Amino acid sequence: MAEKKKIGSSKATAGVKKVALLGFGTVGSSVAELMQMRKLPGIELGYVFNRNVAGKLAGKAAQRVPASVEWTEKIEDVLGSDADIIVELMGGIDPAGKWIRRALASGKSVVTANKQLIAYEGASLLRLAAKNGAHLLYGAAVAGGVPVIPGVLQGLSGDSLKRVSGILNGTCNFILSQMETGADYAEVLAEAQRLGYAEADPTADVDGFDARAKLVILTRIALGAEINPDAVAAESIRRIAAIDFSYTREMGCTIRQISRAEIDGAVVRARVAPMVVPRSLAIAGSHGTLNTVVTNGRFGGDVVFSGHGAGGRPTAVAVVSDILAAAQGSGQVALPVRKRQVTGEMVAPHYLRFVVNDKPGIVSGIAGILAKHKINLDSILQRQGYPKERLPFIATVEPCLNTTLKKVVAAIGRMDSMLEAPLCLQILPVEDKDV
Amino acid sequence: MAEKKKIGSSKATAGVKKVALLGFGTVGSSVAELMQMRKLPGIELGYVFNRNVAGKLAGKAAQRVPASVEWTEKIEDVLGSDADIIVELMGGIDPAGKWIRRALASGKSVVTANKQLIAYEGASLLRLAAKNGAHLLYGAAVAGGVPVIPGVLQGLSGDSLKRVSGILNGTCNFILSQMETGADYAEVLAEAQRLGYAEADPTADVDGFDARAKLVILTRIALGAEINPDAVAAESIRRIAAIDFSYTREMGCTIRQISRAEIDGAVVRARVAPMVVPRSLAIAGSHGTLNTVVTNGRFGGDVVFSGHGAGGRPTAVAVVSDILAAAQGSGQVALPVRKRQVTGEMVAPHYLRFVVNDKPGIVSGIAGILAKHKINLDSILQRQGYPKERLPFIATVEPCLNTTLKKVVAAIGRMDSMLEAPLCLQILPVEDKDV
Repeated sequence: MAEKKKIGSSKATAGVKKVALLGFGTVGSSVAELMQMRKLPGIELGYVFNRNVAGKLAGKAAQRVPASVEWTEKIEDVLGSDADIIVELMGGIDPAGKWIRRALASGKSVVTANKQLIAYEGASLLRLAAKNGAHLLYGAAVAGGVPVIPGVLQGLSGDSLKRVSGILNGTCNFILSQMETGADYAEVLAEAQRLGYAEADPTADVDGFDARAKLVILTRIALGAEINPDAVAAESIRRIAAIDFSYTREMGCTIRQISRAEIDGAVVRARVAPMVVPRSLAIAGSHGTLNTVVTNGRFGGDVVFSGHGAGGRPTAVAVVSDILAAAQGSGQVALPVRKRQVTGEMVAPHYLRFVVNDKPGIVSGIAGILAKHKINLDSILQRQGYPKERLPFIATVEPCLNTTLKKVVAAIGRMDSMLEAPLCLQILPVEDKDV
Repeated sequence: MAEKKKIGSSKATAGVKKVALLGFGTVGSSVAELMQMRKLPGIELGYVFNRNVAGKLAGKAAQRVPASVEWTEKIEDVLGSDADIIVELMGGIDPAGKWIRRALASGKSVVTANKQLIAYEGASLLRLAAKNGAHLLYGAAVAGGVPVIPGVLQGLSGDSLKRVSGILNGTCNFILSQMETGADYAEVLAEAQRLGYAEADPTADVDGFDARAKLVILTRIALGAEINPDAVAAESIRRIAAIDFSYTREMGCTIRQISRAEIDGAVVRARVAPMVVPRSLAIAGSHGTLNTVVTNGRFGGDVVFSGHGAGGRPTAVAVVSDILAAAQGSGQVALPVRKRQVTGEMVAPHYLRFVVNDKPGIVSGIAGILAKHKINLDSILQRQGYPKERLPFIATVEPCLNTTLKKVVAAIGRMDSMLEAPLCLQILPVEDKDV
């Protein structure tokens, strides 16, 4: 068992920055392990703050922490210490935000993986950091081990990015890419929970709130636009069924939870939703828990980043990279950010799936309602082998305003023969990648 | 026509960093255009150095340069000016290297796209920059508009990377991905030259020297290993024929120019060569002039970066991003780099293609020679439809040392029936992406 040292008893090494970990869970213990294994110059783990230190010290992960590290259950011990860099891995807005503010106000740099906090309060925290000559780095908050944030901030600041999209939630991607092989939502979710990829309450992941926070952060750094996370529409993947993968496969497509934000004049068009993805797009190749982000710039065109978005060790890579950047005083490029209104309205082609009690006139009924609202049917596909009394079939419609389509689809859903509300998914375009 | 201003006549704006461009070709004029269009805060184009200024000023590109910019044909005008950031876009080791040294020595920061210079002299130039408190940034030297260098330096410094591989030359990738559709090398090269993707003398691209310089830079920043560019084996793509794409397609593969470096104890195993790439790998999806880089880390697994690696505007994105980083004093994370020996020896499965004047006993002859050297045949494939007197067929062999195989293949090539030297390509493994 590791020993609990008295706070303040260790000596600082000259030129070495002391790191304090807030939270010693999966990511925190991986950060400690990585720092210990790599022995990176100029940084040293000094403090670990966690509830129930005795319990943590009895665990296996604590064995990898150097004996010189001071453990504490009192946040004051850390905020009042000689730690140079505070690494916040607890999550949640409160008390994490309050503690980060205190650390920044006292000139300590902060590294965090806290996507909700950075989505809601990132702008004001960054101002506080700048005012106090401290760094605030949050590379682990989006796409874990994939260096999207440093890549965009340091490598694409010269471009004028107009769109950012991608797969930002590994849980949804695991579920949907498993469903590709024919499995049903409920069984794959159960498997994901068994493997530790999904929480007992999967709401934050499957209903899009996790991805939404990440999209808001990306929108700030890539598009220079500050948007209200609550104003971004998030749609659940819960209604996607095995049948949708059969039908989209015939279209040369698959289905993924896509987060997408685009600058359009003074507004940002942003949504998180399951969407139909042509297989020729890089994001269609994102399997399992992989994350993929695609930026599109006026000058440089599409840039793709892909890798492991979650898990202790990939996330720890992002955290330790940020610790090194903070320790070396490598500030991130900062460009002006503007507050922008956000809308979920987009003009796009869509996939519609109906489940009906089959009788004559259904297709003409649907076609009639669509035509009345000037929405053009693109294709109808009905495969054999399903019972007439519970018949699934699909239609695709040409680009139209999604808000209008939603109302029209609701009207279609009120037809007698409809057994459930029709499913309506945006189809991603195969964008021109030339520059 | 833009006006030529007298050097030293412009006034510096407080807090704004003055930029001097050395070279006003495709990339240089795109950098000027991008700076003008984006009006980025804190930077201002002050000087352009080029031969034949009158000719440049008469051209269209110069119209987009603000009238306040001072043009000169004398390097002293720039090196002795109040420019804060020198942007070197001339290429070549000399005089570019000499001028960059003078700029750094006088405390000016330098941004360059010069891959050969950074490959050969990057380490000493970085030391010179550090000594003088200046920045040396070269994001445009590898993969143009794809932010691999900032992504690796800022975002993956926390990992311990063991391998870096990818497609680093857009010309070769254009040629090989066009050949996928059945075209022959010579006709696609001619098309690439017509489109401006290939030089009149394509040696640097097709024979691997351009990719090699980029691989050496990536090896330094990703693997922390300083290697001698001349010691890295580079193999040409000139011998790849349409038939090789037919045969590799049947194997579920394609062919790409791959640059690959891996840390193995105290040595770096590195090569640039056309290789057989399974279609399930991300790099197989790199079409046209796209560049793709995959890093593999002990902690974070595979990370993929992809996008437009060349062209004036994508390269200008990397240059302007570096100018912003230099202007904002955002230094890159630096970790220790060690000198390492390099070897091209690798154990890998291989693809062999023979062209023979068919007669009995050829296959058994080949199999006999391979067996004598303990190399295991994995498969033999010979398709119908070719003349017996000039018959192409292929074999694949199980993992073996490439240097041994090369000798064995040379021996096979001396068989009477062989009409040309057999082609021998490494087959990339489908690596485990789990972490």
